[in-house]
Amino acid sequence: MDIHTLTRELHTKNDSKIVLLVGDGLGGLPQQPGGRTELETAATPNLDRLTLQGVLGSSIPVFPGISPGSGPGHLGLFGYDPVKYLIGRGALEATGIGFELKEGDVAIRANFCTLDAQGSISDRRAGRIPTEESAPLAIKLREISIPGIEVFVEPVKEHRFVIVLRGEGLEDDVDDTDPQATGVPPLTPAGNDSGSEKTAQACRDFLKQAGELLKDQPKANFCTLRGIAAKPSLPSYEEVYGLKAAAIAVYPMYKGLARLVGMDVVGEAQTLDDQMDVLRENWQKYDFFFIHFKYTDSTGEDGDFEAKTKRTEELDACVPRIMELGPDVFICTGDHSTPAMLASHSWHPVPTLLWAKNCRTDPCEVFGEAECLRGGLGQFEAKYLMSLALANAGRMNKFGA
Amino acid sequence: MDIHTLTRELHTKNDSKIVLLVGDGLGGLPQQPGGRTELETAATPNLDRLTLQGVLGSSIPVFPGISPGSGPGHLGLFGYDPVKYLIGRGALEATGIGFELKEGDVAIRANFCTLDAQGSISDRRAGRIPTEESAPLAIKLREISIPGIEVFVEPVKEHRFVIVLRGEGLEDDVDDTDPQATGVPPLTPAGNDSGSEKTAQACRDFLKQAGELLKDQPKANFCTLRGIAAKPSLPSYEEVYGLKAAAIAVYPMYKGLARLVGMDVVGEAQTLDDQMDVLRENWQKYDFFFIHFKYTDSTGEDGDFEAKTKRTEELDACVPRIMELGPDVFICTGDHSTPAMLASHSWHPVPTLLWAKNCRTDPCEVFGEAECLRGGLGQFEAKYLMSLALANAGRMNKFGA
Repeated sequence: MDIHTLTRELHTKNDSKIVLLVGDGLGGLPQQPGGRTELETAATPNLDRLTLQGVLGSSIPVFPGISPGSGPGHLGLFGYDPVKYLIGRGALEATGIGFELKEGDVAIRANFCTLDAQGSISDRRAGRIPTEESAPLAIKLREISIPGIEVFVEPVKEHRFVIVLRGEGLEDDVDDTDPQATGVPPLTPAGNDSGSEKTAQACRDFLKQAGELLKDQPKANFCTLRGIAAKPSLPSYEEVYGLKAAAIAVYPMYKGLARLVGMDVVGEAQTLDDQMDVLRENWQKYDFFFIHFKYTDSTGEDGDFEAKTKRTEELDACVPRIMELGPDVFICTGDHSTPAMLASHSWHPVPTLLWAKNCRTDPCEVFGEAECLRGGLGQFEAKYLMSLALANAGRMNKFGA
Repeated sequence: MDIHTLTRELHTKNDSKIVLLVGDGLGGLPQQPGGRTELETAATPNLDRLTLQGVLGSSIPVFPGISPGSGPGHLGLFGYDPVKYLIGRGALEATGIGFELKEGDVAIRANFCTLDAQGSISDRRAGRIPTEESAPLAIKLREISIPGIEVFVEPVKEHRFVIVLRGEGLEDDVDDTDPQATGVPPLTPAGNDSGSEKTAQACRDFLKQAGELLKDQPKANFCTLRGIAAKPSLPSYEEVYGLKAAAIAVYPMYKGLARLVGMDVVGEAQTLDDQMDVLRENWQKYDFFFIHFKYTDSTGEDGDFEAKTKRTEELDACVPRIMELGPDVFICTGDHSTPAMLASHSWHPVPTLLWAKNCRTDPCEVFGEAECLRGGLGQFEAKYLMSLALANAGRMNKFGA
């Protein structure tokens, strides 16, 4: 059962405002048994104050034991079943660099590689060519022209770049060309149905011309294609929730994910303080605001417990600027946990705070992982957060009579 | 996954007795943050005593954020996935007035309306005609005769009445005839398949004769048809649980819902005390007893916190009369929350108490929403309550070897 089946039918509109503040990778782990997590160590007086009136819980991003990437992590928070709505690797890569995919586009994650004289791959990553060498090569590939198809090539980092094919009737059931081995030639793209064969033909054209353009390069004399994926087709926030939604993010990946569900990306914020300015400027124009804060995740990924704690305090400090606008529903959570102790995304449930007038508060006193265990939201799948937000905003009719 | 797939296969029979005491709309909200809900305010010494030996939890009627009507609320409690088993509007309306639908019946919610001289609707509710005027008109429509089809017409309230068509091969895929607008004529019933076309033909015959019978009425000179729906096909309690089940309810809606899952409606109780008498009289004849108490919901709907609290105490007071009969499993819960503060059904989880010899008790001391948060049943979807009841009654075999 897709919760959207119900929200589509039951949502209603009013003047309420909902704010979803996402501390990326918010959940953590203590440094030793019996210790406190990053969030529990951080001084978060503003979130604690809201905890007294709000309701806590632990969000399970996908399923117990599953550590999600940014794509499924955010789709879950946005209320889209992350197992049903998969974003292909190429589409996620394009989204992550801020490329605005259009309906029907096919995105490809490409890797520069090195071919030997026999045409076999001698290095699958072109000697991990540095970005300053690879980016001009990716840009050179923009010379490639395929009849009837618009081709975009965007540098990424080191050996990686992105190709987007735009044209009529392109499908994405085309296998990777990277054989995942050296000493063998790259595979030839082949489509598994007629629309995909059209894409495969374009890929073959691309590779042929790329081979020509790169043939004199010492390292990056060819490329492989991976994760060939159409723009995912996601119903919009307007469609499934009746919400006019704005995304206030700094990094392209999160702007891109928000765009995929039909949010408007507003402002040009570079800092959390900028994001608060953008929120204030757009307050009257939208029903729902997704505010993304990256640094609770990046410090976690760095394995820096202290830095993550500080960044969590920074997140807390922005809360009064949100609350002074008078939202009806305020939610603070993460898309997954990123414990500094693991220096990676993890499967641990994510501390979640929902504040609203009629949320039915619980005995929780501070915002932290242990306290969330006795919260009124219990443990819940992230995909149900939006129906809770809508209900608390008075935006859901009764189901059945 | 339908839990019935497992209960069908695993259930076994014994002499145990299960009582499900439903305080309709039992869950509530405090009057101010930090306050107590209706249930927490009420003195419930009997339920509290059982709490010490029992296990508490919070039942989610459908999904987080979804506020169910009585239909999905009770189907969930009865263990029927409320999203899978939908009761069409007409069938629910017929059920609600105590009409006993038979397999193959098609029920229709009809509204008296006013047509102008051109045959366009000038009032969709016939000037909200009072019941004392509309009921005789509904009864007059019993003169309508359709070859091969038995027609039942039942007055409801004001402009509303119910039509039931009984005949061979009637399907219910027929659109509403109410155009949801005035200044336009009613729509003509059309079936979307051959069985539904047969129903649509009967509807057209009905409307033609109704037009004749009503033509001289000043207000209610025609009617529209809505929510055309067959009796929902639900597997019985005997089939999915192996239980001979009795329903002891005062209001027709809950008797009707119980009949839909194959319970016998027993007694003619008008009060909770009557219901206890009926329970005692039928104790030896059934395995399972559904006892419905309406007033925790109706006082909640009225927004009367104090009255709901009192009604909750009334519910508690009947518990000794149940326990003296020696049930093996006793459950007290609601079909949804109806906080007086919202004066409506809500999405909040419903406090649930399960008492049985081997229930594995928890540290909970009193029956209330906050205490349920630390209960041993955790937060669970209502549809799993029946498998828990069966297990605690020793009525479930092991799954797999």
